[in-house]
Amino acid sequence: MNRQNDDTAPRDPLVIFTPSGRRGRFPKGTPVLTAARRLGVDLDSVCGGRGICSRCQVQPGRGEFPKFGVTVHEDALSPVNAVEERYDRIRGLAPGRRLGCQALITGDVVIDVPAESQVHRQVVRKRAEVREITLDPAVRLAYVEVSEPDMHEPSGDLERLQAALAGQWGIEGARLHFALLPALQRILRKGEWKVTAALWQSDAGSSPEIIALWPGLHESGLHGLAIDLGSTTIAAHLVDLQSGAVVASAGVMNPQIRFGEDLMSRVSYAMMNPGGAEEMTEAVRQGLAGLIGDVAREGGVAADTLLDCVIVCNPVMHHLLLGVDPYELGQAPFALATSGALDLCAADLGLSSALPASAHIHILPCIAGHVGADAAAVTLSEAPEKSEDLVLIVDVGTNAELQLGNRERVLACSSPTGPAFEGAQISAGQRAAPGAIERVRIDPATREPRFRVIGCELWSDDPGFARAVAATGVTGICGSGIIELVAEMRMSGLVDASGLIGTAEQTGSPRCFSDGRTQSYLLWENGDTRITITNRDIREIQMAKAALYAGARLLMDRFGTDHVDRIVLAGAFGAHISPLHAMVLGMIPDCPLDKVTSAGNAAGTGARIALLDRGARAEIRETVKRIEKIETAIEPRFQEHFVNASALPNAVDPFPLLRARQPLPDLRFNAGGAGGDRAGGAIGVNERPRRRRRRR
Amino acid sequence: MNRQNDDTAPRDPLVIFTPSGRRGRFPKGTPVLTAARRLGVDLDSVCGGRGICSRCQVQPGRGEFPKFGVTVHEDALSPVNAVEERYDRIRGLAPGRRLGCQALITGDVVIDVPAESQVHRQVVRKRAEVREITLDPAVRLAYVEVSEPDMHEPSGDLERLQAALAGQWGIEGARLHFALLPALQRILRKGEWKVTAALWQSDAGSSPEIIALWPGLHESGLHGLAIDLGSTTIAAHLVDLQSGAVVASAGVMNPQIRFGEDLMSRVSYAMMNPGGAEEMTEAVRQGLAGLIGDVAREGGVAADTLLDCVIVCNPVMHHLLLGVDPYELGQAPFALATSGALDLCAADLGLSSALPASAHIHILPCIAGHVGADAAAVTLSEAPEKSEDLVLIVDVGTNAELQLGNRERVLACSSPTGPAFEGAQISAGQRAAPGAIERVRIDPATREPRFRVIGCELWSDDPGFARAVAATGVTGICGSGIIELVAEMRMSGLVDASGLIGTAEQTGSPRCFSDGRTQSYLLWENGDTRITITNRDIREIQMAKAALYAGARLLMDRFGTDHVDRIVLAGAFGAHISPLHAMVLGMIPDCPLDKVTSAGNAAGTGARIALLDRGARAEIRETVKRIEKIETAIEPRFQEHFVNASALPNAVDPFPLLRARQPLPDLRFNAGGAGGDRAGGAIGVNERPRRRRRRR
Repeated sequence: MNRQNDDTAPRDPLVIFTPSGRRGRFPKGTPVLTAARRLGVDLDSVCGGRGICSRCQVQPGRGEFPKFGVTVHEDALSPVNAVEERYDRIRGLAPGRRLGCQALITGDVVIDVPAESQVHRQVVRKRAEVREITLDPAVRLAYVEVSEPDMHEPSGDLERLQAALAGQWGIEGARLHFALLPALQRILRKGEWKVTAALWQSDAGSSPEIIALWPGLHESGLHGLAIDLGSTTIAAHLVDLQSGAVVASAGVMNPQIRFGEDLMSRVSYAMMNPGGAEEMTEAVRQGLAGLIGDVAREGGVAADTLLDCVIVCNPVMHHLLLGVDPYELGQAPFALATSGALDLCAADLGLSSALPASAHIHILPCIAGHVGADAAAVTLSEAPEKSEDLVLIVDVGTNAELQLGNRERVLACSSPTGPAFEGAQISAGQRAAPGAIERVRIDPATREPRFRVIGCELWSDDPGFARAVAATGVTGICGSGIIELVAEMRMSGLVDASGLIGTAEQTGSPRCFSDGRTQSYLLWENGDTRITITNRDIREIQMAKAALYAGARLLMDRFGTDHVDRIVLAGAFGAHISPLHAMVLGMIPDCPLDKVTSAGNAAGTGARIALLDRGARAEIRETVKRIEKIETAIEPRFQEHFVNASALPNAVDPFPLLRARQPLPDLRFNAGGAGGDRAGGAIGVNERPRRRRRRR
Repeated sequence: MNRQNDDTAPRDPLVIFTPSGRRGRFPKGTPVLTAARRLGVDLDSVCGGRGICSRCQVQPGRGEFPKFGVTVHEDALSPVNAVEERYDRIRGLAPGRRLGCQALITGDVVIDVPAESQVHRQVVRKRAEVREITLDPAVRLAYVEVSEPDMHEPSGDLERLQAALAGQWGIEGARLHFALLPALQRILRKGEWKVTAALWQSDAGSSPEIIALWPGLHESGLHGLAIDLGSTTIAAHLVDLQSGAVVASAGVMNPQIRFGEDLMSRVSYAMMNPGGAEEMTEAVRQGLAGLIGDVAREGGVAADTLLDCVIVCNPVMHHLLLGVDPYELGQAPFALATSGALDLCAADLGLSSALPASAHIHILPCIAGHVGADAAAVTLSEAPEKSEDLVLIVDVGTNAELQLGNRERVLACSSPTGPAFEGAQISAGQRAAPGAIERVRIDPATREPRFRVIGCELWSDDPGFARAVAATGVTGICGSGIIELVAEMRMSGLVDASGLIGTAEQTGSPRCFSDGRTQSYLLWENGDTRITITNRDIREIQMAKAALYAGARLLMDRFGTDHVDRIVLAGAFGAHISPLHAMVLGMIPDCPLDKVTSAGNAAGTGARIALLDRGARAEIRETVKRIEKIETAIEPRFQEHFVNASALPNAVDPFPLLRARQPLPDLRFNAGGAGGDRAGGAIGVNERPRRRRRRR
């Protein structure tokens, strides 16, 4: 804390800023903004104290402040002046508020800096357990008055702008993005040599770059985009970089879908079709540009204020976005072209139609060939490296990315779950969309199902359900619905530990029927629509959940633990699945149910953190380096865990948590289903046999 | 100098390198390259000592070296090894030469590093008086062996390449140009993890950038372009960045010619036509791309080795090349959009069709709104700031750029000579091209002319001239021809001091004739072709030369001098005009004729210096800042000098230098020509009246 003048000039007025508590004595007539700057108080200003931007608003106190031993008199600040009066008349100034650059200190005073006047204020996050976000974006505004050209001292307009930034803001060596050069002279003259520059400052120490310029004081804000570029959908949050608020959000299907539903089919497309990678690059860039336009329109934001963008994505999307053929990612050793963070501009990615060519784009680092920038964003959001207890973070997609760790160490891997959790490769499966069954309950006594579909609040056994879903119909089962369905079938004794569906005779349910060579269960029938689940569907889910579980076990082995303190389910999918059912299914290791939380779109949140706080970019670069990467493809133990994890556990007893206790039947249906023997009817919770066998 | 081991291990062999004289003792078995590096001896290597690039060739001595007190025995180095034998067999090794990385020190030895093995060798310049060029290009090659990807330690291919550059060459933090990313993985695998990187290193201290990559050892060289982008012509020199040699040169007309012959007409075109500036930008970039292709073909050089480029040009061309509307340059205060040096890449200037997108382009700083990067290049070539004596540098084009100075200070200005010196606005004027009269002599007794035309070695009074010029004809007079013609007319008494042509009666020459309201002189007549010079033509030349002279005088005034020690004529025009005639005409101040030299295309030379030596880029940036800029447009004295300088001097007596002394007639033809009175028949050398009037 700077206490200059505190002792040397005791008669100078004492100024105390809240909430920081910083204090100092300053000569009478010192502007509040000047005092704040000298004391290092976080008080914003774009115009540099010229009384035009109003960002330095403060709230002076009055009366007794026993805490500080100060009495603030009415005349502790100079009276409201003409600049403030005019500002109040035109824009309105809240009662008691002063402009810090206009109000002069004339006596002892306590001055509160409201949150909206702080540059580096905290951004509120809904979830209390996660890291705070400090607002410190990579782009800031600086209003400057530039010297006019002088024939006696000829220098370029840019050089005089640079001199103004250095002289008025201490910003040395600012480069101009080349795309701005053609407009520079016009803007300077239109603003009568007063301009607002947007400066991008790398977190890696390179010199700042001027990436936008407006005549006069720029007042239509500064915005950024946090983009989660998924294989299936692309989601964008439009963020106000001055307040940290999300202004608008939008999502679109990834247009690459037409080249293949899952990532590996896109890698194959690139391998089989000359120019295929370029086609997909073009498609995803067009999709991005369209989405950016949509979200900007929705937010009512001018495109010229969209100046920073953070993109997170899996490694295949990462490469396709960058124009790199993902060929190497399709085969061992899964080498990334580049794993480091990237600072690009819109023009580099062909996004100049949607963003200013000079807008910056930051891509988070990838963790490994199967664990991408999206996983790094999850790390940034969930901060396992800061966790006191041992946390397992599970982000389920076509691959599941898993992170396990605490303050000591963090491990990460990717598990090849395949697309079953996304509804693909399931006979009645579909993407999460209106009409898709998303929740399922089966009565353990009657073995009759009831369910809900996306877009309708009613359960299927509620009166009026048929009418309520008339518009969308009941079209299929999405990922969360499949998980609940299989778990409920297991819990109600319709399916045995090996994953086989019992016959109508075995189960006493007429919904179980023989369907050619396999068994099925009828979930819904209405006219021509029949939604069933087959033994083969359950097999797909078993494979997927076994892969996920095996990945988690592998990390636990490496960590040297056999339990985790808590589990975080990340991703849109994680937000929709029921922790209870996931555990019944054996997707995730055992853990008290109240220690299983959903982080929502943690990758998107991580992108937003990196967008708002450039310090977080440097931080995640370092964190990623320290994460221990485990490649499941070359770990023999992964195969072991996988084989052992295909059974559906029955020793978990979740019932007390949700409903009346009711023992799980220990059925085994000998219908000859593949893998039935291997999984073994005697296998309960799927880690047990492994541990027994490992203990030699 | 590092003399490690010199005292501590006296029994180790002594190694002395020539020409540097650096010496040290090294344990037996130390490679010569290692010893050279330890001693800071300038010995090249691209492959880092792997015996494959052969750039570290050295010439060991043998026998007595009394100068060093050393006797070198036959076995002072290890015998030629298999690597050297193979190299000799495949590529050939000059007798006695060894590869420095293979030859091991086994005894006291004197080792010569031939010029071609030095990294920073001097480049030979033809003119002895000018600065030496040190070869230190901004782009260098580094061969590296990159670690293969490892699933246990996943990292990107780029990150492993960066680690190899850091570990094997000490090159830290090398960025990859984004355009190379798509090809990175293919190149690394094609080279089996051995690649040659071309690294661009700014002279301004930013981190190095990988701008090209080749599989294995790259052996087809590294090239750069020095481009002089003139209003009329664009000239390119293709330079070998490893030897400093000019490989090929080529020139084309500036395609902007179609928008206006001179600069101001192009500025007008931009002002009058919406999109006109963009059209001209497109035209000049296309012209450049075509020229680069031509010169690369002529030099037999692969485009992927063209990785650096220095462009010099006047301010209007500078702005049009950069895509900046030159509007502001057409009016006071002649503000440049940017005056600083620019580091761009080929993609920025739309030159990716001719150069790799990652190729770097350096544009020298401009000195002022009328004194461009071409003038800065002249400064770099002629180094007035290092001159012991006072030098006036005159670069004549549509504007003349003038620099006056010595080690103490340098002043610069531009004079609006107009295009008369380029043959424009002269009735029989034309550009320098075959058929144009370039040299003129008039017999002072008979007042009969003789001349030579471009493309023919014969004088017009030589036998066979008519036949020799039959192909081209005699088509007009170019700039150097006009200067000689007017000067010869003055010296032979055909023209008086005010610039009036005498009548046939006054001069006794039937070639003088009345041509409407003015007088003319017939230079050539052949069938329908009549080449004459009119009073109006002479008036144009007087205006142009007065502007040039006034600029020089203005600089001399500011410098506080009335004489210059030497004059350098720069530019293609300067290379062709006769110093004698220029002085007779009063274009340049008086100076001993042997102190007037031509620097040829000094701007092009300056571009080549900046291309070869990145240190020169930093140097000229600093020099340009120190140059005192004089804006002639706002200097009242310029107008005075201009008015006073319009007469044609007659007190200069150049005859002894070229031919028998013969007094200049002091004629005055009172034909009422404008300016005749003002110039005054009594005015001799044009500075005299000014000085008289100034001395109050």
